Amino acid sequence: MDSNKGYIHLYTGNGKGKTTAAIGLSIRAVGAGMKVYFAQFVKGQPYSELISLKRFPEIKFCQFGLDCFIINDSTDKDIIAAQNGLKEVSEAIKSNYYDMIILDEICIAIHYDLISIDEVVKVINLRNENTEIILTGRYAPQELIDIADLVTEMKEIKHYYNIGIVARRGIEF
Amino acid sequence: MDSNKGYIHLYTGNGKGKTTAAIGLSIRAVGAGMKVYFAQFVKGQPYSELISLKRFPEIKFCQFGLDCFIINDSTDKDIIAAQNGLKEVSEAIKSNYYDMIILDEICIAIHYDLISIDEVVKVINLRNENTEIILTGRYAPQELIDIADLVTEMKEIKHYYNIGIVARRGIEF
Repeated sequence: MDSNKGYIHLYTGNGKGKTTAAIGLSIRAVGAGMKVYFAQFVKGQPYSELISLKRFPEIKFCQFGLDCFIINDSTDKDIIAAQNGLKEVSEAIKSNYYDMIILDEICIAIHYDLISIDEVVKVINLRNENTEIILTGRYAPQELIDIADLVTEMKEIKHYYNIGIVARRGIEF
Repeated sequence: MDSNKGYIHLYTGNGKGKTTAAIGLSIRAVGAGMKVYFAQFVKGQPYSELISLKRFPEIKFCQFGLDCFIINDSTDKDIIAAQNGLKEVSEAIKSNYYDMIILDEICIAIHYDLISIDEVVKVINLRNENTEIILTGRYAPQELIDIADLVTEMKEIKHYYNIGIVARRGIEF
């Protein structure tokens, strides 16, 4: 086993904890001296985590989504933003500068046809064998489950959204 | 609905992503100006995330475990460390200083009889109604599932440990 080899993680499912797990992974990686490229697809709002992550020059955080994404009503702008994101990720991977590349909400971008699964797999395949790849988002396509080395399903057992609690700053965004 | 009300989260299951989700939540909370008390039970090693979290004076991170915890062979020292941890958490909760209190791996501490579920519930019940409580660890007891407002099961679908990959610095610790 090559202990420096990088692996592909996939965090999917309908439960809370996917993006926060990706943030946690990036924080841990940085503590070990790694450099992280965190690409967030679909989302484009100024989430609280962005403010915190700015304290880490070792984490490059880029959003490739608009302010508001309307499910089942994606526009050309959403598609352009996602396509542009994938291009940037491709450059980041090819640079060989980053030890960890995170494609947050990439499954959502695929699910809503902003990018194709083939394009995503092609970009992942550009990676250096030492690069760790982190994929997140509900509705993971089988192709991503197949190529991932680690898959966790974040399964909703109980959620306060179901009793009328709305997303809160500092907790959900 | 009181938008300032705090809720209880529980992240359990056998898949990777529980502690990293708790780290991610603490990072997001800090970005929104919240103050976080992060208590890590059972574990006592100098994980990479500790180095990163030190950049946040708003996060108080405390470990209440020994260097090495041997499953099914817990010693008095493990029990004392966990009991001491719960006492410290109780003080942190009662201080009303923190907006978010994280009890990482608390389910493991309960499962291996380092602390009782009753003691844990008693401490959680000390909270101010605006405090967010985050509980993690596999083997969550039903009592915690019952009192939690949000429960995510991190379910292992595929794990590279099963093909002989060992825990790696920057990724698992």
